[in-house]
Amino acid sequence: MAKITKRDQDYSQWYVDLVTRAEMADYAPVKGCMVIRPWGYAIWERMQRALDDMFKATGHENAYFPLLIPESFLKKEAEHVEGFAPECAVVTHGGGKKLEEPLVIRPTSETIIWAMYKKWIQSWRDLPLLYNQWANVLRWEMRTRLFLRTTEFLWQEGHTAHATAKEAQEEAERMLGVYRTFAEDWMAMPVLSGAKTDAEKFAGAVTTYTIEGLMQDGRALQAGTSHYLGQNFAKAFDVQFQNREGENQYVYATSWGVSSRLVGALVMTHADDAGLVLPPKLAPLEVVIVPILKADADNSAILTAATRLAEPLEDRVRIKVDDRDNVSPGWKFNEWELKGVPVRIEIGPKDLEKGQAVVVRRDTGEKTPVDQGQVAVHVQDLLAAIQPALLEKARRRLEAGCRSVDSFDDLKATLEADGGFVFAPWCGEAECEARVQEETKATIRCIPDDAEPCEACAVCGKGPATRVPFAKAY
Amino acid sequence: MAKITKRDQDYSQWYVDLVTRAEMADYAPVKGCMVIRPWGYAIWERMQRALDDMFKATGHENAYFPLLIPESFLKKEAEHVEGFAPECAVVTHGGGKKLEEPLVIRPTSETIIWAMYKKWIQSWRDLPLLYNQWANVLRWEMRTRLFLRTTEFLWQEGHTAHATAKEAQEEAERMLGVYRTFAEDWMAMPVLSGAKTDAEKFAGAVTTYTIEGLMQDGRALQAGTSHYLGQNFAKAFDVQFQNREGENQYVYATSWGVSSRLVGALVMTHADDAGLVLPPKLAPLEVVIVPILKADADNSAILTAATRLAEPLEDRVRIKVDDRDNVSPGWKFNEWELKGVPVRIEIGPKDLEKGQAVVVRRDTGEKTPVDQGQVAVHVQDLLAAIQPALLEKARRRLEAGCRSVDSFDDLKATLEADGGFVFAPWCGEAECEARVQEETKATIRCIPDDAEPCEACAVCGKGPATRVPFAKAY
Repeated sequence: MAKITKRDQDYSQWYVDLVTRAEMADYAPVKGCMVIRPWGYAIWERMQRALDDMFKATGHENAYFPLLIPESFLKKEAEHVEGFAPECAVVTHGGGKKLEEPLVIRPTSETIIWAMYKKWIQSWRDLPLLYNQWANVLRWEMRTRLFLRTTEFLWQEGHTAHATAKEAQEEAERMLGVYRTFAEDWMAMPVLSGAKTDAEKFAGAVTTYTIEGLMQDGRALQAGTSHYLGQNFAKAFDVQFQNREGENQYVYATSWGVSSRLVGALVMTHADDAGLVLPPKLAPLEVVIVPILKADADNSAILTAATRLAEPLEDRVRIKVDDRDNVSPGWKFNEWELKGVPVRIEIGPKDLEKGQAVVVRRDTGEKTPVDQGQVAVHVQDLLAAIQPALLEKARRRLEAGCRSVDSFDDLKATLEADGGFVFAPWCGEAECEARVQEETKATIRCIPDDAEPCEACAVCGKGPATRVPFAKAY
Repeated sequence: MAKITKRDQDYSQWYVDLVTRAEMADYAPVKGCMVIRPWGYAIWERMQRALDDMFKATGHENAYFPLLIPESFLKKEAEHVEGFAPECAVVTHGGGKKLEEPLVIRPTSETIIWAMYKKWIQSWRDLPLLYNQWANVLRWEMRTRLFLRTTEFLWQEGHTAHATAKEAQEEAERMLGVYRTFAEDWMAMPVLSGAKTDAEKFAGAVTTYTIEGLMQDGRALQAGTSHYLGQNFAKAFDVQFQNREGENQYVYATSWGVSSRLVGALVMTHADDAGLVLPPKLAPLEVVIVPILKADADNSAILTAATRLAEPLEDRVRIKVDDRDNVSPGWKFNEWELKGVPVRIEIGPKDLEKGQAVVVRRDTGEKTPVDQGQVAVHVQDLLAAIQPALLEKARRRLEAGCRSVDSFDDLKATLEADGGFVFAPWCGEAECEARVQEETKATIRCIPDDAEPCEACAVCGKGPATRVPFAKAY
């Protein structure tokens, strides 16, 4: 098994090597599209299950809305069409005939959903509507990368309708909190969070909230967004309700989403030069047992011992005995390292003599001989320890990647030299934000809730300003 | 709450009334498309979970392939393109430009998947590939019906690759068995099963196997199909592997799928004039408790009793206390009957005095006063009894709906008078099959494994023949 490119040689190539060679994804024959292979999909399934449980625990229900949206719907919200129309795939023919009105493949579903909400919402009794859908969406992309940016991607999109601005605002913030918790507790990925600037917000939103991770190469990655939409879509689709006082009023809205790009974020948060490193909670397999088999020998005692080690763990962890006889133990070690399985157990003839097995941690490489009778307990403790250890390691990297500067020169120099999140004072003007982007390619990733007040903008020197994180981003 | 149309007045209108008023689905503003609302989607989610577990237990893994397929791919398998091209939606523009090659939205994914299998399969070691995907597909339909036939629908499609014809054949039959088990054990829907005739098989298959349910109006419904594809797609996409003897050979294939139309099949198997009747295993809610609240009275004792009844059941069944104070108890009874919740518990002031609650079965309407302390046990036993009772009732209806005739005149008369599956001798000729369809609109639903040999075809009088079920179908 040939090695993948090393990170310090070419981070971008390392990523592609890893994702393709670990059989997480492959390029599709359609430009910009990907195939998610079983190993990558199993990670996404675990993410889906965890998120779906969290959405349901916060009162949301799943529904499914059509893939195809009449082109005219997109045009009803002025900012929305400007943002999304250029990215759409357009269906012009169906059933062998030219369509009267072209249909776009959903780039996001606000418009079709609000067209339906108009049918379903009449009174305050119908509110709130707390719906989510798991779906594929399509945005025509020029430069694509497996998982991170593809023309078609998988995601979930929540779309809620509320009687008051306050409720909708709270909902948008609550779901950002759910994403933040998911990122930390499941992905072991610490994030910055806050509102987007007007230049960076969702097309059609009043406010966009975001969580932002820091990848190993110093670039930021937007990992989830939650939008307070105000009455923009309710007005565009004329969705009014009768309030408790009998007055007609436009409905308030939110939408929020995370996508299969989270799988890419997971790779670039934990993986190393040997391959993927998976947090146990999201690993399709938590433990693999590799019996050290010899060619042309009687391996039955080893295979029996391997099976006995697995038995007490089978109901508790996702485990498998890799008993293939057509590849060597070393080949298997490399393969499971590449695929990021958190714990490997090796058992060979010498271990058998000593009544032990060797437990190997994927994240640190640490090898520990363990009495066979203690393996089950040891492995469960280890898995419980690996999850927070990965978060802690990623948190230290995030903290080390956050730097603070006051001048534009320092901002440029630090972005150039170190990457990461460079916090600098900003006056709030779009012009200053644009100038930084022109000269450094870095954008303001979010305005943190607790942003420090400063006297002078790093770009124009005017005040008041607040300290916000700039970064180059995926 | 207005009543829905009765079945004997207009079965078709009853179905639409039920599906829309129970908030299972609604018409989308795009022709032929539907919106699956939370109640309908929750049923589909339960179906998905059960099927997915069964697929994984039989060794399958999930993956995800692109929505868009180059038009040229579809043309590579001659029968396949003939069957599907006329039903396709075609994307001609993307990202503001006309595409060099039009892309079709997948009507099914054999072609894109076999284009990928060519990259992944080289040796016998790579086989079998046992993949499934959960996805949306699109087939341009002229006449649509909520859940049963819509332009876009949700489904799963298994696509497997094997080294031998025998293995692939066994896989196709195994998955038909999975569908049959799912239909009976989860949906409480007994089915006929067998191979399709050549006229009715999947475009590109060697053999199509099917399960066929009988709806309450005497029409058959194809509920799941499993195809043995032979080497048709391997040849079309040049997918060869080196076998153990070092020779190159084309791969053998299967594909198999069930869709969200199963939700419609569930409705037409069990529902009645009051609404949906759900088998407990697929019910989003198994039990609803309706406290009999009085306007302008102190209802706290009743609400407390209702909550206490729910508590011991909460970890065991999907249960909810309907404590809304803006609709009457009678309104709630109707609503939960319409939505098909298997068991309702009523508790009012008189029940409180007697220390009892009234347990009501949705399928039979039977009401039983039960001591409050016995409610938890009683309800669990009842749920366990309802599931097989529904299957048994449906089985009796299926058996009563199977009739046997020998002549073409009797076939026509019985189809006209009674509907259902009418078993008649058929010689195997496509001409005779076509003639029956022309004159009666009925088709051969399947050729059962144990089809009875007969001497003379009901149509042409020639022999040998076998007795096969004709029916009008959805």
